[in-house]
Amino acid sequence: MTIISLSSDFGVQSQGVGIMEATAYSIAPEVRLIHLMHGLPEFDITAAARTLETARYLPVGCHVCICDPGVGTDRRGIICQVNRGDYLIGPDNGVLVPASRILGGTVRVHQITNPSYMRLPVSPIFHGRDVFVPAAAHLANGVPIEDFGEELQATSLAPAPYDEALVDGDRLMATVIQINRFGSVHLNILHEAWDKMGAIEGTTARVRLPDDNELEVRVSRTFGDVAPHENVILKDDYGRVEIAKNLGSFVEEHPLRRGDNLQVSLAASEASGEVRS
Amino acid sequence: MTIISLSSDFGVQSQGVGIMEATAYSIAPEVRLIHLMHGLPEFDITAAARTLETARYLPVGCHVCICDPGVGTDRRGIICQVNRGDYLIGPDNGVLVPASRILGGTVRVHQITNPSYMRLPVSPIFHGRDVFVPAAAHLANGVPIEDFGEELQATSLAPAPYDEALVDGDRLMATVIQINRFGSVHLNILHEAWDKMGAIEGTTARVRLPDDNELEVRVSRTFGDVAPHENVILKDDYGRVEIAKNLGSFVEEHPLRRGDNLQVSLAASEASGEVRS
Amino acid sequence: MTIISLSSDFGVQSQGVGIMEATAYSIAPEVRLIHLMHGLPEFDITAAARTLETARYLPVGCHVCICDPGVGTDRRGIICQVNRGDYLIGPDNGVLVPASRILGGTVRVHQITNPSYMRLPVSPIFHGRDVFVPAAAHLANGVPIEDFGEELQATSLAPAPYDEALVDGDRLMATVIQINRFGSVHLNILHEAWDKMGAIEGTTARVRLPDDNELEVRVSRTFGDVAPHENVILKDDYGRVEIAKNLGSFVEEHPLRRGDNLQVSLAASEASGEVRS
Repeated sequence: MTIISLSSDFGVQSQGVGIMEATAYSIAPEVRLIHLMHGLPEFDITAAARTLETARYLPVGCHVCICDPGVGTDRRGIICQVNRGDYLIGPDNGVLVPASRILGGTVRVHQITNPSYMRLPVSPIFHGRDVFVPAAAHLANGVPIEDFGEELQATSLAPAPYDEALVDGDRLMATVIQINRFGSVHLNILHEAWDKMGAIEGTTARVRLPDDNELEVRVSRTFGDVAPHENVILKDDYGRVEIAKNLGSFVEEHPLRRGDNLQVSLAASEASGEVRS
Repeated sequence: MTIISLSSDFGVQSQGVGIMEATAYSIAPEVRLIHLMHGLPEFDITAAARTLETARYLPVGCHVCICDPGVGTDRRGIICQVNRGDYLIGPDNGVLVPASRILGGTVRVHQITNPSYMRLPVSPIFHGRDVFVPAAAHLANGVPIEDFGEELQATSLAPAPYDEALVDGDRLMATVIQINRFGSVHLNILHEAWDKMGAIEGTTARVRLPDDNELEVRVSRTFGDVAPHENVILKDDYGRVEIAKNLGSFVEEHPLRRGDNLQVSLAASEASGEVRS
Repeated sequence: MTIISLSSDFGVQSQGVGIMEATAYSIAPEVRLIHLMHGLPEFDITAAARTLETARYLPVGCHVCICDPGVGTDRRGIICQVNRGDYLIGPDNGVLVPASRILGGTVRVHQITNPSYMRLPVSPIFHGRDVFVPAAAHLANGVPIEDFGEELQATSLAPAPYDEALVDGDRLMATVIQINRFGSVHLNILHEAWDKMGAIEGTTARVRLPDDNELEVRVSRTFGDVAPHENVILKDDYGRVEIAKNLGSFVEEHPLRRGDNLQVSLAASEASGEVRS
């Protein structure tokens, strides 16, 4: 059994979702298609990239992510093979890059240009149905990646909407990549990077905000480890590090936006150098 | 593998959707059930018919559409076999008719009255679970259509909520069947009828609105082929012809409603006579 | 084929839903996973219990319901085996109890503590993915219930959010367990209890409201059996008894809330004694 996962900004009400699912089954009857997320904010490639990252919690498979402000232009469609064994499929707009880093790094990238593996005629505005899902289904059937189109150099690809946090001594130079509905802030720090920095539950981290205010925040395993309305920094449930206020909203007190930069220092940390995921 | 597709106005939050899916699997374990759309506006049979039309983008299968303002009355439940090989299943309220035209025309229609193929006792208000999905699953299992109930004459069926556009010389007498969230207007003109009329990309169509204003609109392949805020007429991604304003809302400037009639003339067209799909 | 059904308060937009589905397939590739409901009001265990009840309309299987205000505390995770043959899986917060009564009563309950059947490391806040869905999938694979952890006494379990209606002569002492979007009121009276009380369509029931007002309400099979805007009491489509106003809202005229107690007397009833489901 091969898994195909599907994410999009089509909304949960779109018949396009069911049509893409049926397209996959008609090409590859034995696959299991999983709907990962269809409520991505429209054309929001940061949110799309953050969602596709969570493919790390899916089995190895073909993961399609369609958030495509450039559909109808000459932006490329690509397949990215990663070290864990997955294929990431979608437009070349940076959405696939964070997931490829997390799934062990890119092995190779090919463009999708071969019409033999498309549904014809290709609609100028529905490449999910006509290009990307067919590519995933043919990959699931064992078609080799090189049959879809020419190989692309990694350096020619559109950049990711966000990078990984940088290490500077005992500080992590981090960026806000998501603010959730509870007002918690998710950073571009992977669990693995957090562990490598030596984050220890029960210690205190110093968080410098963009306005240069500095907060002391308890490093914990879960919300309930701190008092109500106390701030807490912890591993979230999808692979990143999160700053939250227990039973409250962190951003209500500290207005932050996606893309803001924070510095996180671990008092007792002895880690240094580069953080790899 | 047989596909069963399911559409309804139950909303994406209804447990009825999952219960219908399980009902299908318990009768026909080998089918693939696809949720085409469950966010149909409640009791809106025009929207339901328009959605079921898109079964042309699904594999041949059993397509159930439940939008049933008459549930609990003596309206009939029917199965419509079409030339492509599909079965369309639902209440006899006109919803199945446009899809049957698009899928090659009706072969025969049978009423669903045989309790052997229903879940008993039949709820007076949940025929999706108790009548229509069981019918689809038994059809998928190979039960012949004539075993479900008596054959019905096509003339006895409820009429479609909309017809196909009529050809009058070089004009198409069209009707608005859908206005999408971007303010674009979808007409009852099929891609095939558009091609047959000789619509050529790059030419100009004349569109007469209900207020007798006449617009010149560019015939294009996609939105990006015209300037920002320019009007465009093109094939939509679900089989019909659409009038839109690139990066804007057509209906904001030209208030139209579903059911309004438009005349579309193709300047250079040489087509004439009846348009068939 | 074994059915796993999944209900949660994650919302239909959550990627957690797809990740749980994939988790099930990766452990038990042959199961059919059904999404029963993911739009439960957050942390609302009454609504969750009411939804899980409708597993009676699903085939025998493993039914997971995750509405878990206590996640991260020491509340237990449990598996409840019922007489129909199903396994109910979720937190020990009362949500599983009404469904277990309806599915024939509890055979035995085991705690989930064996890490061999969890996804490790277990997230402190996502037991759906790491504990409950893996348990369902391993049960579907044939792992015996006793392998998951120690047996629990029924008396040690958290109580149900609501009980079944009590019989007092010809009266049912009932409680409002759900008010739907049409303003109808669903009571803790099962279809079977209603039949056993001798409710006959066409007769009149007396309903005493919490303010001691008493209404005469027609006992019917469906809404259309009474005049527009007339009140009606009938079997709902998910196993309970419902008071509604035909083509109107019952609660608009009679403000009631979940948890309110009503007395329902059947004029001609000769039933007495205990009502069992």
